[in-house]
Amino acid sequence: MEKENKKVLLAYSGGLDTSCILKWLLEKGYEVICFMADVGQDEDFQQARDKALKIGASDCVVKDVKFHFVENFVWPAIKMGLIYEKRYLMGTSLARPCITLALIETAKEHNCAYISHGATGKGNDQIRFELSAYALNPAIKVIAVWRLPEFCERFQGRNDLLEYAKENSIPVAATLKKPWSMDANIMHISYESGILEDPSQSAPDDLYTMTKNPQHAPNNPTRIDIVFNHGIPVRCTNLTTGNTYEIPTHILQYLNQIGGEHGIGRVDLVENRFVGLKSRGIYETPGCKILYEAHLDLEVYCLDREIFRVKSFLADKMAEYVYNGFWFSPEAEYVRKCLDESQRSVNGRVTIELFKGNVSIIGRESISSLYNQELVSMNVHGQLDYTAATGFIEINAIRLKEHYRAYGSTPNNNMHSLNRKFSRVKLN
Amino acid sequence: MEKENKKVLLAYSGGLDTSCILKWLLEKGYEVICFMADVGQDEDFQQARDKALKIGASDCVVKDVKFHFVENFVWPAIKMGLIYEKRYLMGTSLARPCITLALIETAKEHNCAYISHGATGKGNDQIRFELSAYALNPAIKVIAVWRLPEFCERFQGRNDLLEYAKENSIPVAATLKKPWSMDANIMHISYESGILEDPSQSAPDDLYTMTKNPQHAPNNPTRIDIVFNHGIPVRCTNLTTGNTYEIPTHILQYLNQIGGEHGIGRVDLVENRFVGLKSRGIYETPGCKILYEAHLDLEVYCLDREIFRVKSFLADKMAEYVYNGFWFSPEAEYVRKCLDESQRSVNGRVTIELFKGNVSIIGRESISSLYNQELVSMNVHGQLDYTAATGFIEINAIRLKEHYRAYGSTPNNNMHSLNRKFSRVKLN
Amino acid sequence: MEKENKKVLLAYSGGLDTSCILKWLLEKGYEVICFMADVGQDEDFQQARDKALKIGASDCVVKDVKFHFVENFVWPAIKMGLIYEKRYLMGTSLARPCITLALIETAKEHNCAYISHGATGKGNDQIRFELSAYALNPAIKVIAVWRLPEFCERFQGRNDLLEYAKENSIPVAATLKKPWSMDANIMHISYESGILEDPSQSAPDDLYTMTKNPQHAPNNPTRIDIVFNHGIPVRCTNLTTGNTYEIPTHILQYLNQIGGEHGIGRVDLVENRFVGLKSRGIYETPGCKILYEAHLDLEVYCLDREIFRVKSFLADKMAEYVYNGFWFSPEAEYVRKCLDESQRSVNGRVTIELFKGNVSIIGRESISSLYNQELVSMNVHGQLDYTAATGFIEINAIRLKEHYRAYGSTPNNNMHSLNRKFSRVKLN
Amino acid sequence: MEKENKKVLLAYSGGLDTSCILKWLLEKGYEVICFMADVGQDEDFQQARDKALKIGASDCVVKDVKFHFVENFVWPAIKMGLIYEKRYLMGTSLARPCITLALIETAKEHNCAYISHGATGKGNDQIRFELSAYALNPAIKVIAVWRLPEFCERFQGRNDLLEYAKENSIPVAATLKKPWSMDANIMHISYESGILEDPSQSAPDDLYTMTKNPQHAPNNPTRIDIVFNHGIPVRCTNLTTGNTYEIPTHILQYLNQIGGEHGIGRVDLVENRFVGLKSRGIYETPGCKILYEAHLDLEVYCLDREIFRVKSFLADKMAEYVYNGFWFSPEAEYVRKCLDESQRSVNGRVTIELFKGNVSIIGRESISSLYNQELVSMNVHGQLDYTAATGFIEINAIRLKEHYRAYGSTPNNNMHSLNRKFSRVKLN
Repeated sequence: MEKENKKVLLAYSGGLDTSCILKWLLEKGYEVICFMADVGQDEDFQQARDKALKIGASDCVVKDVKFHFVENFVWPAIKMGLIYEKRYLMGTSLARPCITLALIETAKEHNCAYISHGATGKGNDQIRFELSAYALNPAIKVIAVWRLPEFCERFQGRNDLLEYAKENSIPVAATLKKPWSMDANIMHISYESGILEDPSQSAPDDLYTMTKNPQHAPNNPTRIDIVFNHGIPVRCTNLTTGNTYEIPTHILQYLNQIGGEHGIGRVDLVENRFVGLKSRGIYETPGCKILYEAHLDLEVYCLDREIFRVKSFLADKMAEYVYNGFWFSPEAEYVRKCLDESQRSVNGRVTIELFKGNVSIIGRESISSLYNQELVSMNVHGQLDYTAATGFIEINAIRLKEHYRAYGSTPNNNMHSLNRKFSRVKLN
Repeated sequence: MEKENKKVLLAYSGGLDTSCILKWLLEKGYEVICFMADVGQDEDFQQARDKALKIGASDCVVKDVKFHFVENFVWPAIKMGLIYEKRYLMGTSLARPCITLALIETAKEHNCAYISHGATGKGNDQIRFELSAYALNPAIKVIAVWRLPEFCERFQGRNDLLEYAKENSIPVAATLKKPWSMDANIMHISYESGILEDPSQSAPDDLYTMTKNPQHAPNNPTRIDIVFNHGIPVRCTNLTTGNTYEIPTHILQYLNQIGGEHGIGRVDLVENRFVGLKSRGIYETPGCKILYEAHLDLEVYCLDREIFRVKSFLADKMAEYVYNGFWFSPEAEYVRKCLDESQRSVNGRVTIELFKGNVSIIGRESISSLYNQELVSMNVHGQLDYTAATGFIEINAIRLKEHYRAYGSTPNNNMHSLNRKFSRVKLN
Repeated sequence: MEKENKKVLLAYSGGLDTSCILKWLLEKGYEVICFMADVGQDEDFQQARDKALKIGASDCVVKDVKFHFVENFVWPAIKMGLIYEKRYLMGTSLARPCITLALIETAKEHNCAYISHGATGKGNDQIRFELSAYALNPAIKVIAVWRLPEFCERFQGRNDLLEYAKENSIPVAATLKKPWSMDANIMHISYESGILEDPSQSAPDDLYTMTKNPQHAPNNPTRIDIVFNHGIPVRCTNLTTGNTYEIPTHILQYLNQIGGEHGIGRVDLVENRFVGLKSRGIYETPGCKILYEAHLDLEVYCLDREIFRVKSFLADKMAEYVYNGFWFSPEAEYVRKCLDESQRSVNGRVTIELFKGNVSIIGRESISSLYNQELVSMNVHGQLDYTAATGFIEINAIRLKEHYRAYGSTPNNNMHSLNRKFSRVKLN
Repeated sequence: MEKENKKVLLAYSGGLDTSCILKWLLEKGYEVICFMADVGQDEDFQQARDKALKIGASDCVVKDVKFHFVENFVWPAIKMGLIYEKRYLMGTSLARPCITLALIETAKEHNCAYISHGATGKGNDQIRFELSAYALNPAIKVIAVWRLPEFCERFQGRNDLLEYAKENSIPVAATLKKPWSMDANIMHISYESGILEDPSQSAPDDLYTMTKNPQHAPNNPTRIDIVFNHGIPVRCTNLTTGNTYEIPTHILQYLNQIGGEHGIGRVDLVENRFVGLKSRGIYETPGCKILYEAHLDLEVYCLDREIFRVKSFLADKMAEYVYNGFWFSPEAEYVRKCLDESQRSVNGRVTIELFKGNVSIIGRESISSLYNQELVSMNVHGQLDYTAATGFIEINAIRLKEHYRAYGSTPNNNMHSLNRKFSRVKLN
């Protein structure tokens, strides 16, 4: 009889929660390998590994997914123009499927039947992790301890964890825990919970990590050029220094640095989680805020109007998919192909000015734009028949005239009523 | 036999173009009354009236539509969250139907069978004027001189107009014409054409009128509170001075002033006109930029997630209608009712910080928000069954598992292939 | 100390499953009241009540919700034009929230803290029941036995239920169970599972209950008139007999009878359940098939084109909500208001011919249609400027010309290539 | 100096209108070549050619585009699932760009600077012709005589044309003109205008050409199988005779024949034209009605639910584009690629029964369907965790509970009020 595979790959952070989870899983008789993905967060991986091994992990695998994350998650998001509820650039939503991909790969390499994580039962991340995992390996089994009655009854709060750590000689960081939680990667840092749960209270200024307070940003703007090819950023140049970046991670890191310097990409919002709760989040996304704005500018410049309309609808759908954890899904694969197709002609250069929190587009150039300066110029009758609009308007007016013929020639809306008398300005 | 009504109401600006048009219409045998709407632009109406009468107009009627414009066009646009192609707040698009309403009212009062305007044949404004006019009075006749062959052949450029003015003793402003055109009202100023037609060239700094260059804006931020009722701004308070504004025009004027002071609301873009051309525009919309951001924040805070989704789709449609000149149309009336209905619970207060071009939301409060701090709190298991998400994820995963069962358990996308080997970080 | 409320209101059908559930709940120490809603199904309620009381129910309440169902669920669905995945008229989806409304009312009347039902764990109905229940009473507790491990382990198949019934003297119908399950109400009958689970096998002809096989339908068509007011059917007249129906249930019952006679409203399809499974269903919806087609015809006739576009999008959303169990939800309430608003002008009369499975629209009349016979007539130049379309086409062509100017004047699609040579037909 | 190119290629039908137009163009000094496309209409091309040459055409070119039309316009429309305003399968809308493609090819071959047609100024066809022409050759010049003042003033009605024909010895068909106009091709026949302009009057039975009156159709149904590959019909088999068709035109012609025999594909409707008018049309589309229904059935069977949702939205957009004349446009090319991408897994066989006007789907099979009989089966707990839906429902209920917590636990809709008392059915 085959022995049951009780090997778990645990998404490990080195912090209190996942260290206790590691110990608890061991107690429950699992063999546990820890897994950490380097997505660009500020982390001492050696120290975390040492801790994991000390607690009893069989191994602690750290994989560097930064480049993959930028190239295959962040860049596509920029290309597709993804933004959730008009403001959130989804730095965490994008990282989860990437990390899960590495996790599932590692689980396979180490023949783990289980994966485990420390995400809570009210959040989006559990869903993003698990849906990605099931899509990548429908047979994988997930241990989500914060949804297990046994675990939750034992650990009802932070104090229970601290006590358990003490009992089990799990080292606890001496530094005081910040009164919020954060998630960092090469694209962004998010902050939530704790004191941030009151949406009327503004975030403390010492919360921000990637960006300077705009009030302390330089007094002189920086101009940069960003070049896109098929909607993907391929070159970024500081117009003062001439420094140029072409490797995806380098472009993003440079824009994070210069954007952060200028205080760009902070946002404070309440968002709608997939589980149906509203939650307050603070985000810093300096580089991608710049890229998002530059890409949008170039896109409207290059794309046919009607393609832009359809494409925008699809991008809204895609943002929902990604936010909700469906990056790996039939619908996301499908819509992504459609969005990719729309970006063929999004080629060109956008000039941007960064200054104290502002990203200002000040010019753009493209060989594949449909912009026709001669045609649009007010000084040239040119190619266009100047009388054409008469017929255009007349035909467009048919429907309106018919409607108001049928329902009264004044819109049936009090406010617009012609009964209103505008006051004549008294003049001599 | 009834005498033909040859009375024309001319939308008059006092400038070279409409002065020449006035004279030309008189030459053609029309009786011409001039009409000016005070939408908040910087204009010497007395001087303009004098000029019109001197040229030969029977009358020059000036009507003050500012309050009506703010209350019935600008405020609804804020309430509906209208924005065209993600960036243009439509200060001009909204003003046209308002002006046309006053124009049609005046045409009726003065028994004019015709209206006339100086908008060109390539732009959006001719369409907005005329569609509004036909909706409000299907029988009205329009003389759009820039689409008349006779007129266009006579006046092939600015020089022809200048010469005609000279011949006919029409006074021409001594000041040099700016190398661009502008359109101003209480909501915004837009700039286009002339040197702006090259989209790669940044706008000269002396172009801006309503807003300070952020570089010259105050070094200290200003905090304000804005209160919304059913999505409409009803109060605005400067948190430092305590000054409060409650009358629509006052709120807008104050926010224009303080926003302009802080360099807020500039945007430089290329947009898609209804006639199918792309054109470059520069806009300053300080007050409404603040209101747009504040409203969006409160809306996401207050509305049910799914209502917000549907509502956003409808707002995109409405923005297209308004931009294209269909403010007075069955579809705009319909969609507006739907959008109004969505705003019942958008009630509350948003706190904003203005600083050197930035509008930062830093807090919000509402009694009608669906936000539930206790429910979302990470520290409380509380009302929610902490195991529920397991089933939620399992059910959501069915479709994914079935898809990848049928088509291979690895997404059929090269980039995501599990064949990829992430590099393991070397640690001791 | 307050005694725990262990009163359950069980949605009872009188069949094997819910009779066993009733008994099992009693065994578990609950007091059980049975509830049946008369939604128009063919049922001996007296017999079912006797059985429930015999098994041990404290009471068995039967409520007649037929009128309410037609007026407040079926008629709105017709008015809104709801159809799921283009073919399913949602007779079951609409009945569930209606039944739940009566259930929750009855639970309140009888002070029951629990409700229970016999819906299975893979279907839509459990979701529709429970989401409706939670919306109507967020504090209600639900016992869904087919999702309880204890119950499911005890009853692993029909034989376990039969045995349990025998042990407990629960009467079992002598008639052989059909090899499929069905759900009937005044609007429709649905059939699924059992032999129908193979989607390649056609349904046996003896399955159908409400409709004749079109092959056995009368050889002469029947013509009827249906009158709608604000999108709601208000009168139905058989044009041969002159019989007229005006009461909602009467209209529906008459159309079911005459439609059934003519073999109308059968559909065999595979649909996408909310839980992510595909399932095969067979439906008979004679009366509502007629009403759906008549309403659609009148709607396109009466509504402005652009309102129809927006309205159709909203109806697709609403159909999803209803199918998924969100009839009572913020989004459904919102979208319903929007759809109601669209139907103001959907007033008129549609003439229909019924014949061997066909619903043919053969004429329509309305005083609020925007149809203008004189304007559209090919024989009349009339009100319309016959040259206007020239400008309309020219302006619409700008965007196309610009696109093909930029990307080649031949669409970049092999199939459309001008390189293709059409063969010239040889003639003398 | 180069001589002006005054060669016109006239879209010729052989009828009264285009014969007069031919003569008139010749009078105006143009050299005219006539062009006819064989799209499958019933036409004596030799006779028409003789007539054209007799009137004075330099040539009369007839091209056979049937195969191209089916393969590159009809088949894609089936694949994409195009239907306009839920009922019109667009037989004419699809033929226009195909004919125009051949027209533009021929114009190029014969070095014609102009094309001309006889479409009227109120219809869709002028737009479809001309937008297609401009897309395919932005430099082409169009003579649309029914929009030329000179032409329209001379020919104010049919009598003027008859008189002109007589004066110019243009032969006029002896047969009486039908009191409606029709447009036929291998896909459909449409009828409009004349007596059909009254939408309350049913079409006379002798109007129909492709389809039998269902009352005279065979008393026995015919079963056929249709096989699709990537959404395209590739085989059609009569299950009684075993006859099989695989060539696109053969499949369509066979389905037209057998569908017509069974009275399938008639529709009488009022539609919204692009110019803003409503018009009444009668259509016969037997073969494509069958294909549309079969394709839809297979598509829902094969596609992931969410892909089907997005795909349906795109198909609605595409139907608008095609109806409005934008087959050759950036947006149609784009959306078509998206729709094509969605059809990869639409592979399988649909079994259909044809009977007296009905198309009944009775079964379907596919190797690429996501349907999983074992998973969905009510008899098998199987792969699925039967308790999962509990959590699924709980999480979905959060949003509802929160909403009704905030706004009252009874939906704020009178009709649904719990104050309503359902009447209890009196039983013993």
